[in-house]
Amino acid sequence: MSDRATGPGLRGYTVPRTPTGRASLVPRPPWHYVGDFMVVDYWADPDACVALLPEGLEPHPDPGRCAAIFVDWQSCSEGGEELVDPARSQYREFFIVINGLLDGEEVTTCPFIWVDQDFALARGWIQGFPKKLGQVWMTRTFGLDVAADPGTAPGARYGATCSARGHRIAEMTLTVEGESAEGPRHNAPPLVNVRHFPRLEAGRHDEPAVHELVRAKSRDRAASAVLEGEATLALHPAPGEEHDALQPVRVGRGYRLTFAYTVDDLETVRGYA
Amino acid sequence: MSDRATGPGLRGYTVPRTPTGRASLVPRPPWHYVGDFMVVDYWADPDACVALLPEGLEPHPDPGRCAAIFVDWQSCSEGGEELVDPARSQYREFFIVINGLLDGEEVTTCPFIWVDQDFALARGWIQGFPKKLGQVWMTRTFGLDVAADPGTAPGARYGATCSARGHRIAEMTLTVEGESAEGPRHNAPPLVNVRHFPRLEAGRHDEPAVHELVRAKSRDRAASAVLEGEATLALHPAPGEEHDALQPVRVGRGYRLTFAYTVDDLETVRGYA
Amino acid sequence: MSDRATGPGLRGYTVPRTPTGRASLVPRPPWHYVGDFMVVDYWADPDACVALLPEGLEPHPDPGRCAAIFVDWQSCSEGGEELVDPARSQYREFFIVINGLLDGEEVTTCPFIWVDQDFALARGWIQGFPKKLGQVWMTRTFGLDVAADPGTAPGARYGATCSARGHRIAEMTLTVEGESAEGPRHNAPPLVNVRHFPRLEAGRHDEPAVHELVRAKSRDRAASAVLEGEATLALHPAPGEEHDALQPVRVGRGYRLTFAYTVDDLETVRGYA
Amino acid sequence: MSDRATGPGLRGYTVPRTPTGRASLVPRPPWHYVGDFMVVDYWADPDACVALLPEGLEPHPDPGRCAAIFVDWQSCSEGGEELVDPARSQYREFFIVINGLLDGEEVTTCPFIWVDQDFALARGWIQGFPKKLGQVWMTRTFGLDVAADPGTAPGARYGATCSARGHRIAEMTLTVEGESAEGPRHNAPPLVNVRHFPRLEAGRHDEPAVHELVRAKSRDRAASAVLEGEATLALHPAPGEEHDALQPVRVGRGYRLTFAYTVDDLETVRGYA
Repeated sequence: MSDRATGPGLRGYTVPRTPTGRASLVPRPPWHYVGDFMVVDYWADPDACVALLPEGLEPHPDPGRCAAIFVDWQSCSEGGEELVDPARSQYREFFIVINGLLDGEEVTTCPFIWVDQDFALARGWIQGFPKKLGQVWMTRTFGLDVAADPGTAPGARYGATCSARGHRIAEMTLTVEGESAEGPRHNAPPLVNVRHFPRLEAGRHDEPAVHELVRAKSRDRAASAVLEGEATLALHPAPGEEHDALQPVRVGRGYRLTFAYTVDDLETVRGYA
Repeated sequence: MSDRATGPGLRGYTVPRTPTGRASLVPRPPWHYVGDFMVVDYWADPDACVALLPEGLEPHPDPGRCAAIFVDWQSCSEGGEELVDPARSQYREFFIVINGLLDGEEVTTCPFIWVDQDFALARGWIQGFPKKLGQVWMTRTFGLDVAADPGTAPGARYGATCSARGHRIAEMTLTVEGESAEGPRHNAPPLVNVRHFPRLEAGRHDEPAVHELVRAKSRDRAASAVLEGEATLALHPAPGEEHDALQPVRVGRGYRLTFAYTVDDLETVRGYA
Repeated sequence: MSDRATGPGLRGYTVPRTPTGRASLVPRPPWHYVGDFMVVDYWADPDACVALLPEGLEPHPDPGRCAAIFVDWQSCSEGGEELVDPARSQYREFFIVINGLLDGEEVTTCPFIWVDQDFALARGWIQGFPKKLGQVWMTRTFGLDVAADPGTAPGARYGATCSARGHRIAEMTLTVEGESAEGPRHNAPPLVNVRHFPRLEAGRHDEPAVHELVRAKSRDRAASAVLEGEATLALHPAPGEEHDALQPVRVGRGYRLTFAYTVDDLETVRGYA
Repeated sequence: MSDRATGPGLRGYTVPRTPTGRASLVPRPPWHYVGDFMVVDYWADPDACVALLPEGLEPHPDPGRCAAIFVDWQSCSEGGEELVDPARSQYREFFIVINGLLDGEEVTTCPFIWVDQDFALARGWIQGFPKKLGQVWMTRTFGLDVAADPGTAPGARYGATCSARGHRIAEMTLTVEGESAEGPRHNAPPLVNVRHFPRLEAGRHDEPAVHELVRAKSRDRAASAVLEGEATLALHPAPGEEHDALQPVRVGRGYRLTFAYTVDDLETVRGYA
């Protein structure tokens, strides 16, 4: 039996790994993304924010600064084969970012996120997003001036919801006032997350096999014009969830935009020994 | 006990009916719709088409003429309250129409359709669409010229799929060539369907309580420009399904457009005694 | 063109109807059912109960008497073909019954019910159950005396939940005390429901095509021994839902049992003109 | 800022990690499991089996020896809190094991597996199961001798199906002949899997952060009597899947049983440098 016949022949960026690598849940990077965003800049309880910052991050000077983000994504790997099989390219997600400081630089970090497809869940874990499955909905515009289309004129209303395990997790609304001069601010700083993968050996359950602070890297970023307006945001408690610790104490402005980028790299900031 | 206290107080366009009518699965018409369409004009086996025509329809002079249609819908009732709760306004569906003649006039009729939300399923039955539940996916464009967005230029590729009970039902692709002069033809004629609701009394299982040929009516129609190009279409067999009797023997052109209309009426063409 | 070639050839107990009838969403009766039940006898606000009684029913002398029922079903039509394709035979549901009187006889009626499969939704409508889609979960026992199996001994705890459109609808728990002498009472009387199918013609939206009080008939009933114990029940509000009008003001006993029957008939009590 | 306030306070066996650890997708071990199994012993193409063996495993002397397994699980962590919230304790899965040798000892390894809940997906990755999401169905028995219950007598028929992304993945049937003397053999040897977690740094996509051969450990195993009979098994191709490389060339016996165990440990056999 040759080496090739067994282990060394197994390929694929993620499990399941096979001789061809075609069955891999997440295809090899680069990953190209485009999506419709709804973003609300807001402030949560400062203590709750600080308690959720990963080791190495300091509290932001603007206490409690957070953003809540819904995205309706379409993504693919190089070559774009998945685009014509949209069950393999589309997904929706909801997440929160807390603002903090890393070595004095403004950064964001994602403590909670829900997504509706398995490949996106795994791809998130690889990037340090702590993804769970959820159901996510976002109002759309179709570009026709008709009753079922909110359009983009002042007064247009958009909503978004996230649920998980049959519990409502989050609700957001946006009433458009007009084009935004600056766009959302609370999710603008670089994103710093924690990659984590546990160990199961008895006695080592508290020694994760992977535990490191990482900084997202992306390229080929593109964005549409941004709509801005009045927003609402609600985060609801649910069993086995703690995102409601970050419920808004003050809600800022809401935004709607389309955004695209490509990811095929990551910077390890530090390992947690 | 007053009349009001019991039956006469129950309201609602559909079940469940309550004193307020707010729990009704389908809100009262009018229903406003807007959606992204992918359409393929095609021809199926002529005998299979004729065998599926409801009583009263004659075969179309162009034998086997059909269309396959995917739609990504957003809809609401008067006032549009559902639009900001998109789990109550969005759904996707796949259906086939056969072309025929009614009193010498060209019409279409829908023998098979799958949809992914309960309110749309029931609303379809009320209009004579024989809806089942399915999972439907369609490639989107987001208006950014990036790798994950097919765009609308010649060569742009779109795909759509429908599955039900874990079986792939249908797959469609479109490769855009340019703007269409005329748009899809095979789903253009008026739609004539069969409203049907069974009886359960022993001995009367073959005497439906509702069984009538109806003609769809709509108003406030609007449409975008139409993209046209080369298309593929596959209809796959599955247990308890018969749509594959209409699998394509010849595939015409494919189309992509956005379309909107409002429905609050229906014409009964004839009752089946 | 022969008659057979078009309409008269279309068969099937429900839509979609075809020359063979095999694609029908609901197969022809009889329908054989078996399922695990969790039942809680309880009392709701009497006025809310009376307001939800269909015309022709009088309030029960025990004001507010209701039952909440979770069922994990397996069902099939004659021949049982669906049993080896369990996506076509299994479903779970949650419903509430209100107690009332029909011509002086104790009856129950179902104002609210959620189910997780399309064939069961349609089959419910045919019997007068006002079904919507929901997600339903129930603790199981597997017959092994192990940590993950609650078993059936005193102290065993069972839970059940129903959600719809991402909102929690209902939660029930049962703590087993022992075998029940009499079993649940509040869902024991005959079931009387309203069959309802709307009309869409303009001006006739309030004249349903089918609107009749019906009495369920069944045969070949079988049941297991019944476990009984302390119960909890919560009904939660949600947009577009009104079941929480029947939230418990007093909770009786909870029960767990397995039950089977066959349905192929229905008695029309009266038409609502 | 105290240590406690930021990183060191984050707890939880998996992401998302919080000060309390309650939001962790997978609770801390031990994990207690009980489930209904359908197992088919079979043989696939020997070359396909060898090609899928992880490095360090040798081919089994009985070439192509595999088993296909469906399980309807209920699981919980210590204390069993999830049992009364069954959306957090129940899931179903389908997987294949290949037989091989590790240092001359008979072992099994799992190249492909689908599961229908996120917590079970992540818990699988931690144990080296290459899980993707799928929809899984299995015929049940309810213990009543009625038409909708296959029962356990000779001739009883059971079916199981797995689908993913709208494609049918696997179908199994079992026709019971009687109690089994020995039970299934092809999944009896110890399980050896590969734990794998990728890296995203540019240039290191082929250097996984975790890549190790592990041996499953369990305790408190319990099993019911085993039913045995004639079986069928089909593995269907699907885009992005390769399990059909293991489609049966010969099908052995089928089995049905209930099985329970507890997992809170794992043995690392070797790291892949």
